Amino acid sequence: MSEPVIGIEKLQELISRGPFNQWLNFTVLKSDGEGVEIRAAWREEWVVNPERRYTHGGILAAIVDVAADYAIAAQLGRPVPTIDIRVDYHKAALPGDLVAKAHVVRIGSQYSTAEAWLYDREGALVASGRGTYFTASPK
Amino acid sequence: MSEPVIGIEKLQELISRGPFNQWLNFTVLKSDGEGVEIRAAWREEWVVNPERRYTHGGILAAIVDVAADYAIAAQLGRPVPTIDIRVDYHKAALPGDLVAKAHVVRIGSQYSTAEAWLYDREGALVASGRGTYFTASPK
Amino acid sequence: MSEPVIGIEKLQELISRGPFNQWLNFTVLKSDGEGVEIRAAWREEWVVNPERRYTHGGILAAIVDVAADYAIAAQLGRPVPTIDIRVDYHKAALPGDLVAKAHVVRIGSQYSTAEAWLYDREGALVASGRGTYFTASPK
Amino acid sequence: MSEPVIGIEKLQELISRGPFNQWLNFTVLKSDGEGVEIRAAWREEWVVNPERRYTHGGILAAIVDVAADYAIAAQLGRPVPTIDIRVDYHKAALPGDLVAKAHVVRIGSQYSTAEAWLYDREGALVASGRGTYFTASPK
Repeated sequence: MSEPVIGIEKLQELISRGPFNQWLNFTVLKSDGEGVEIRAAWREEWVVNPERRYTHGGILAAIVDVAADYAIAAQLGRPVPTIDIRVDYHKAALPGDLVAKAHVVRIGSQYSTAEAWLYDREGALVASGRGTYFTASPK
Repeated sequence: MSEPVIGIEKLQELISRGPFNQWLNFTVLKSDGEGVEIRAAWREEWVVNPERRYTHGGILAAIVDVAADYAIAAQLGRPVPTIDIRVDYHKAALPGDLVAKAHVVRIGSQYSTAEAWLYDREGALVASGRGTYFTASPK
Repeated sequence: MSEPVIGIEKLQELISRGPFNQWLNFTVLKSDGEGVEIRAAWREEWVVNPERRYTHGGILAAIVDVAADYAIAAQLGRPVPTIDIRVDYHKAALPGDLVAKAHVVRIGSQYSTAEAWLYDREGALVASGRGTYFTASPK
Repeated sequence: MSEPVIGIEKLQELISRGPFNQWLNFTVLKSDGEGVEIRAAWREEWVVNPERRYTHGGILAAIVDVAADYAIAAQLGRPVPTIDIRVDYHKAALPGDLVAKAHVVRIGSQYSTAEAWLYDREGALVASGRGTYFTASPK
């Protein structure tokens, strides 16, 4: 693990630039040598099933991708293109904000891997996963 | 490949029940022994980056998950819980509707695998992936 | 799909250079615009469980990786480093040769994706999966 | 994390029953509430490329699968069928024994997820990954 090269305010600014990230309403809670912690604020549109009111797996996948990407962004100073993601679903996520904890698995000169763990309001693990990101230097 | 057990109208009804699927604005275009074809109607909130206007990878992941799930739903008569998904990103998706073609890889008595391929308006492949779904009979 | 840039003999020569590929005893059966077909000859050491005599999942993963890699090798003229693989297990593979059919999903200038499907002697699908490969030009 | 229900000797006995696991020459080094640690003893057949002498990615995938499976086996008392695995390659693994550290991500009544991290003799991370395993009670 290395220290982040940009601070929380800069991370927050980068993450909030995009319309879909704004819609997911991300707040960067923490960023240090251990990784990043990001909250997504629940919204009614996240529901997959009107009776059971579980959160849609696509929302969880999006949060895993963003959190893993920003764990790398904290180290490189910029978000990076996703090559692929893989998400495991552990437990139905009921309505409520979600907190993602993400850290770098390996930073490489061409591609890098990061991992994110997603918790509900009670602190239960609802999903986790990994992404591979394209981290060659922009020309 | 087997013939679907429910028709397009029923698939459309099932897919449109959930708020997030409504927000992704899915139309079931086709469902036959080869699989399903589903369109998601573009919306401004999908953008990840205000300058380049690429579609957010989380949106593409959500569409892959839903399309693969409904390829199974067409065979089993109901959508099923996602165990895990894996999504490969092939090309930046510019603003515009997306069409997913999905088919079953294997239906099992406990868990099943399906695959989805996602195309932009020009027919270019922008993402593809697979999911594993929990298909044990509900008790 | 594009036509292969190297023939079956060259593919066979490349695949047979490595000790582990020799141990898996690969024969390239086919290579054309649709992809490659490769047989791995069964050996007693592949068994995971002495009573049931199923083939070890690690063997199936290795064959998926090699077949997907060589689908790309047929297009680029050389095997390429694996970034990541994902393998789905569909059915226990009983003792016997296995045939992998693999094709390119997308060739990119930096990284590429290919898919492989693995069949037993009766033609039943036992495993399938995908890999992402590093395909930037060697300097 | 929970305490293992079987000891190291029993784990070693279970892992050593299968011919391919014997060929990979596994030694269980540790098993406690944190997970398991397993060594695979290098052999010449693992090489993918006779000049560079890197270890074949299929070998690393097999070790990730076995280590993640046995992290679950330590909790459930028996190894379990693999549903799918995903492996990220971080660094070429040169000839030498490999040590895998694996832990459970989540144990579920139907399927479970575990993660493994694979290190070379110098302690460098060479690969890591996850598997989903079928953990419904045998009837």
